[in-house]
Amino acid sequence: MAQLDVETSVNKYPIHILENIRHQFNQYVSKDYSAIFIVTDERVANLYLEDVKESLASHPKVFHTVIPAGEQSKSIEAYYQLQTQAIEYGLDRQSLIIALGGGVVGDLAGFVAATFMRGIDYIQAPTTILAHDSSVGGKVAINHALGKNLIGNFYPPVAVIYDIQTLQSLPAKEIRSGYAEIVKEALIADKELFEDVMQEKLNQVTNASLRDHIFRGIKIKTHFVQEDEKEKGIRAFLNFGHTLGHALESEYGYGTLTHGEAVAIGMLFAMDVSNAVFSNCLPVETLRKWLNLNSYPLVLDEINSEKLLSRMKSDKKVSNNHVQMVLLKEIGNPVLVELNDEDIQKHLENFINKMMKN
Amino acid sequence: MAQLDVETSVNKYPIHILENIRHQFNQYVSKDYSAIFIVTDERVANLYLEDVKESLASHPKVFHTVIPAGEQSKSIEAYYQLQTQAIEYGLDRQSLIIALGGGVVGDLAGFVAATFMRGIDYIQAPTTILAHDSSVGGKVAINHALGKNLIGNFYPPVAVIYDIQTLQSLPAKEIRSGYAEIVKEALIADKELFEDVMQEKLNQVTNASLRDHIFRGIKIKTHFVQEDEKEKGIRAFLNFGHTLGHALESEYGYGTLTHGEAVAIGMLFAMDVSNAVFSNCLPVETLRKWLNLNSYPLVLDEINSEKLLSRMKSDKKVSNNHVQMVLLKEIGNPVLVELNDEDIQKHLENFINKMMKN
Ligand SMILES: NC(=O)c1ccc[n+]([C@@H]2O[C@H](COP(=O)([O-])OP(=O)(O)OC[C@H]3O[C@@H](n4cnc5c(N)ncnc54)[C@H](O)[C@@H]3O)[C@@H](O)[C@H]2O)c1
Ligand SMILES: NC(=O)c1ccc[n+]([C@@H]2O[C@H](COP(=O)([O-])OP(=O)(O)OC[C@H]3O[C@@H](n4cnc5c(N)ncnc54)[C@H](O)[C@@H]3O)[C@@H](O)[C@H]2O)c1
Ligand SMILES: [Zn+2]
Ligand SMILES: [Zn+2]
Repeated sequence: MAQLDVETSVNKYPIHILENIRHQFNQYVSKDYSAIFIVTDERVANLYLEDVKESLASHPKVFHTVIPAGEQSKSIEAYYQLQTQAIEYGLDRQSLIIALGGGVVGDLAGFVAATFMRGIDYIQAPTTILAHDSSVGGKVAINHALGKNLIGNFYPPVAVIYDIQTLQSLPAKEIRSGYAEIVKEALIADKELFEDVMQEKLNQVTNASLRDHIFRGIKIKTHFVQEDEKEKGIRAFLNFGHTLGHALESEYGYGTLTHGEAVAIGMLFAMDVSNAVFSNCLPVETLRKWLNLNSYPLVLDEINSEKLLSRMKSDKKVSNNHVQMVLLKEIGNPVLVELNDEDIQKHLENFINKMMKN
Repeated sequence: MAQLDVETSVNKYPIHILENIRHQFNQYVSKDYSAIFIVTDERVANLYLEDVKESLASHPKVFHTVIPAGEQSKSIEAYYQLQTQAIEYGLDRQSLIIALGGGVVGDLAGFVAATFMRGIDYIQAPTTILAHDSSVGGKVAINHALGKNLIGNFYPPVAVIYDIQTLQSLPAKEIRSGYAEIVKEALIADKELFEDVMQEKLNQVTNASLRDHIFRGIKIKTHFVQEDEKEKGIRAFLNFGHTLGHALESEYGYGTLTHGEAVAIGMLFAMDVSNAVFSNCLPVETLRKWLNLNSYPLVLDEINSEKLLSRMKSDKKVSNNHVQMVLLKEIGNPVLVELNDEDIQKHLENFINKMMKN
């Protein structure tokens, strides 16, 4: 199995997951587009841009642009710059954008596609493990100086083309980052996947396992997204681990921890809180050991619970000034819980102490 | 009759057209929004902002911002600035934006609403005649330095609240501009409306006639918009007169001619071409006389057909490098016709000569 389909309110798009599929883009660009504009970052360009361009060689008008790698490219300036290039290359409403890269390229180029001439087609071509998550579901965005992903759209791609062969060149840090999201998907929906991943040593994972995990992760993601495209309900479960995760990312400054590394710590916290709130015994220690074994940074240096709480409260998901956290009644059974500031702070202090001791 | 409904792919919204309705906003903001953010321009603020704020006085959190009047506010800088303010005022996904003003405010604030946290509710509160057109249909956009309305979304409001009493303070130039769009709607869909408007002297039009014309114009607009929300087909008929209109606007520089004044000339041209292509006899002279009588500027000074053609070809609606024009087989019977460059240029030269002689 190498294909999944996602149905949205406006279209239905396939997700192709195949090794070396980057050499066959032409097979998946079926429509007769007036022009194709590939957006990628400098690292990915060095590795895979030529392959993709070659596979589209029969097309008369293929352009590309290379943005700097990293989160800072999700800016209003980079966004406007891409719009300028799209105009200068003569893109029109019958043109296609291809986002070749990780979540940064996908979010940025996707938002350009969503708003160029009020929306044109685009393809997500993820090249990171994390982007198995970001490329599916149609959320596109750039950052505002005052907060992450504050400016964006819900705008589904026309296809996701995922060459998992490209994941071979990922540095260990990015493998960790992406796997955290697979663990998240497992925890909210699939106990078996959780147990399978806990068996893996990430620097030894085979292509077959990787594809299997990614496939099962995407399946979970598509389920929640199809049920709740605009995140008015259960899609929020995909934010498991993200309340503290986002707070840590911004508190340490983006780039110190990867997104997934921050989410990993956030999941430990969410499991701790779940255990406290529901007096149950989720396998926090299993997860902590696995994270340690795979070199996730689990220290919380110079961190302070008040600052974290105030970060949590400036998140998009806050409602009526209360923090909402996804908790687990058990693995595969998430719930959204509103917590008051006092309780959160208490949980945070306990958690920070525990992390310091480990 | 004072209400029309529009059904879109994502919602259904009412259009309320009533004198002095600005004093009753509270009645139309039914949902319990976490905050309300009014966006308006400096002229409109002086005239009507207090009325609207007063009518919302019972709401705990009402903020406003005043942008400079005029097309230059539809910029990426103004857009980002509004996003900043929305964040700083603490707007969240349960907040509302009200666009109080003409098409500039509506397009800009609507695009902010469409993209703030991936989309929040907004109300169009038009205060110009032209905005009877721009406030309906969900097209929102800002300009790029290289072209008008190139960055935007299709994003319908939750309501249109149209206080036609506010139109009393419009300068003559803006009345002309707005009426050109009503004439356009009449020409593509309603011969009777065309004949009625041709009886009016614009500086003497009564409130009752004005409301009647606006109501019938909006009815036509909603018809085309409902049939073809994303402009893949018949919605394009609403661009009657706009091919040359847009070219003139950009050739003379925005602000020299108002949008409607440029469209008025564009309609004369489109009727001329229609007569030539279909050998029929649309009432071009009736329209020309009416436009003259109402002081529309109908001269084409220092204009050159090659430049205009190249402007026409950089429009969003160009397909395969051919200009597409909306022509009329008769009043109420529009068709989309692709014309080759040579023919357009010939028509343009004839038209320019004719205009010079008048
Ligand atoms: N839209 C969504 O639903 C969603 C969901 C989760 C995360 N996100 C966003 O995704 C972004 C993070 O995505 P990411 O982790 O993929 O970041 P990224 O795009 O910055 O990629 C991480 C790094 O890996 C490099 N890289 C990419 N592919 C490579 C390859 N095949 N080999 C070697 N190096 C490669 C990149 O150049 C970059 O330096 C964040 O901005 C986050 O907000 C979006
Ligand atoms: N979204 C669409 O479907 C659509 C359709 C047509 C036009 N538009 C856009 O609309 C814009 C033009 O709209 P517009 O003509 O309303 O321009 P505008 O908003 O600039 O208003 C024209 C002038 O009238 C002033 N004004 C507004 N209301 C007033 C009142 N009640 N009394 C006195 N003065 C008043 C404004 O301050 C401004 O100076 C253009 O940017 C155009 O691209 C959009
Ligand atoms: Zn995430
Ligand atoms: Zn117009």
